[in-house]
Amino acid sequence: MKILVVNAGSSSLKYQLIEMDNEEVICKGGVECIGIEGSKISHKVNGKEYVIEKHLANHTDAFNLVMECLTNKEYGSISSPEEISAIGHRVVHSGEAFDKSTYIDDEALKRLESITHLAPLHNPASLACLKSCKSIVDCPNVCVFDTVFHGTMPKKAKLYAIPYEDYEASKIRKYGFHGTSHKFVSQEAIKYLKSKGLNHSSIITCHLGNGSSITAVKDGKCIDTSMGMTPLDGLIMGTRCGCMDPAAVEMLAEFKNMSIKEITQYFNKKCGFLGVSGVSSDFRKLCAAMNEGNERAKLAFDMFVYQIRKYLGSYSVAMEGLNCIVFTGGIGENGPVAREAVCENLEFMGIKIDKDLNNNAPRGEMVDISAKDSKVKILVIPTNEELVIARETEEVVNSLKR
Amino acid sequence: MKILVVNAGSSSLKYQLIEMDNEEVICKGGVECIGIEGSKISHKVNGKEYVIEKHLANHTDAFNLVMECLTNKEYGSISSPEEISAIGHRVVHSGEAFDKSTYIDDEALKRLESITHLAPLHNPASLACLKSCKSIVDCPNVCVFDTVFHGTMPKKAKLYAIPYEDYEASKIRKYGFHGTSHKFVSQEAIKYLKSKGLNHSSIITCHLGNGSSITAVKDGKCIDTSMGMTPLDGLIMGTRCGCMDPAAVEMLAEFKNMSIKEITQYFNKKCGFLGVSGVSSDFRKLCAAMNEGNERAKLAFDMFVYQIRKYLGSYSVAMEGLNCIVFTGGIGENGPVAREAVCENLEFMGIKIDKDLNNNAPRGEMVDISAKDSKVKILVIPTNEELVIARETEEVVNSLKR
Repeated sequence: MKILVVNAGSSSLKYQLIEMDNEEVICKGGVECIGIEGSKISHKVNGKEYVIEKHLANHTDAFNLVMECLTNKEYGSISSPEEISAIGHRVVHSGEAFDKSTYIDDEALKRLESITHLAPLHNPASLACLKSCKSIVDCPNVCVFDTVFHGTMPKKAKLYAIPYEDYEASKIRKYGFHGTSHKFVSQEAIKYLKSKGLNHSSIITCHLGNGSSITAVKDGKCIDTSMGMTPLDGLIMGTRCGCMDPAAVEMLAEFKNMSIKEITQYFNKKCGFLGVSGVSSDFRKLCAAMNEGNERAKLAFDMFVYQIRKYLGSYSVAMEGLNCIVFTGGIGENGPVAREAVCENLEFMGIKIDKDLNNNAPRGEMVDISAKDSKVKILVIPTNEELVIARETEEVVNSLKR
Repeated sequence: MKILVVNAGSSSLKYQLIEMDNEEVICKGGVECIGIEGSKISHKVNGKEYVIEKHLANHTDAFNLVMECLTNKEYGSISSPEEISAIGHRVVHSGEAFDKSTYIDDEALKRLESITHLAPLHNPASLACLKSCKSIVDCPNVCVFDTVFHGTMPKKAKLYAIPYEDYEASKIRKYGFHGTSHKFVSQEAIKYLKSKGLNHSSIITCHLGNGSSITAVKDGKCIDTSMGMTPLDGLIMGTRCGCMDPAAVEMLAEFKNMSIKEITQYFNKKCGFLGVSGVSSDFRKLCAAMNEGNERAKLAFDMFVYQIRKYLGSYSVAMEGLNCIVFTGGIGENGPVAREAVCENLEFMGIKIDKDLNNNAPRGEMVDISAKDSKVKILVIPTNEELVIARETEEVVNSLKR
């Protein structure tokens, strides 16, 4: 069974065609600048990259071009669209309208449309892409949501302390994101812990990248997570401020002479590593500047590490124990300096990193970087959100057949 | 030396006259409804209460009435205003303009005026009261700030991840509040720990009342605290929501059809225990409703306890260890049920409460409620913010004489 995984942004569309028999990526690529100048596709197959520049007015144009690449006689991977058994869509926000990965029939499409306002930056693109796929390829479409893995959070963790009726009517609460990643790496960690004879697990998964979130996963279930109603909440990120005194929003809007909409944009785009350091939103550039003695870059790094550490503490208490920490995402997988700083001096919590293993961890595979006498296992696990989406899509499609 | 401690709100003025030789309260009272209908003073001395209803247009009227009570021939405590050696003022916000309790000369008054916008709900009242005192009594006035104890927080803890230039220009960052209380109880705890042979201290002070905040105090210095730029941040409180995704502010404002000013008011006045439970902002009423089976009251209680527990974890990591938890404030001092729920199942962190000691802790004195085998001391310490203000005022006045 071949499954096409698509991930649509407001002006982008990433895709992977996956052969589920061996879970191998047949080909993948990305479309950029949809609806704006400079639109193009980069299609990668058999180690080669094909770039086509072409005006693409919308997601339908973009998806048509993806299908052209997939079925191209020279470098295509399939001879006809019918070879695609299903399309799996990454959708950022499920609201309370979906509690699992879902086959999108007309009713589900309406439900999805009804929650667009909950993620105005992300969901409309998914919806546009979904409609294009439905019109162009005749196969089942399945939505896999970033929020669903966090659906098991208890109310005491997921509600903001606003009037309960306002929560019920608005559905504004903590949802959390990066759910497919947290699910994937926590399941991998559970397998590893079981192989070591540990049948109960209290895992903190740190997905650290341009967007970052941390999740407490107890015996496979998410019980808390750092992102909130939107992906702005929680940790300092590349350009996002993370959590903040809600009363400071008014003060900053007044100070910057911005509307509430503008200040939210500012929190999403001008803050984080970029705003604190003045150097870059890119963690590698931030670290390079820090190593050259840039004090504000050092401050942004220190804030990041300090905040992650505080989550390690709070989520240990939330789970009433801790036996595993997982690092994943671009920074989590490739940032030994950050990992070491996060785990430093926490022996009192049973956390002890092996510095050599950490510094020499090979990329692209799971590595246990904990010291032999560490009570808490510290793992680096490469995430694979596309594979999770493909697996969930396959499962949903198979369940339709029953 | 007699010191008058005053604490002005926008329509209130609380006061205590303290004899510093023995730190005893000579008399105390409060003025309510200044500038609005129903204004009155309640003056307490020698176990009796005197209530005078009188129209009070402003803080000058109010303070004149306070002085009348203090010098009254029948129930007054002093024969003339000259017996007051100094007046100590509680001021909520110091901004970055003050880093210690400060004698208010003309220059300091100007500095205080320059930061009014940082605490628009609180500082103007203190300023009005200060000016009244200066005009009516000829003695030194000293301001003692709620924020100053938190001045030792490192930048990584106190900055929000907004552009650094915007922080420098606006001074918007985490300041923290209840500083006199956290200072007082942490110092009392340090004395107690020393008496047990513990010379290093990593203390988490939980000031839990209608407003609540939690502070990490390492070897006497505050290194982090839960309130932020304003007292809205951090924990769920009586009517305040505590911390929240800053992007949810826009969504809620839109949902409630409120301006940014109105939504900040809503966060301060309509949320917290009141909003979640729909019962009351009062913790005793909340617990009573919970005991009668009210599920939303139980939810508000659970959110409160869960959030406090997460701070225990995060601040343990921030201090790289923990050897003492202090409960203070109305709920902290008088809420054994909340204290037990906060400490439950945390033996893995060395926290073990003695349920009997906790349930039978006498009110109004320091009690150690930790189990004998608890690695972390758990203390209930009655706070005394007025005494701290009086002590600091005395110290400042004495330093003026040198």
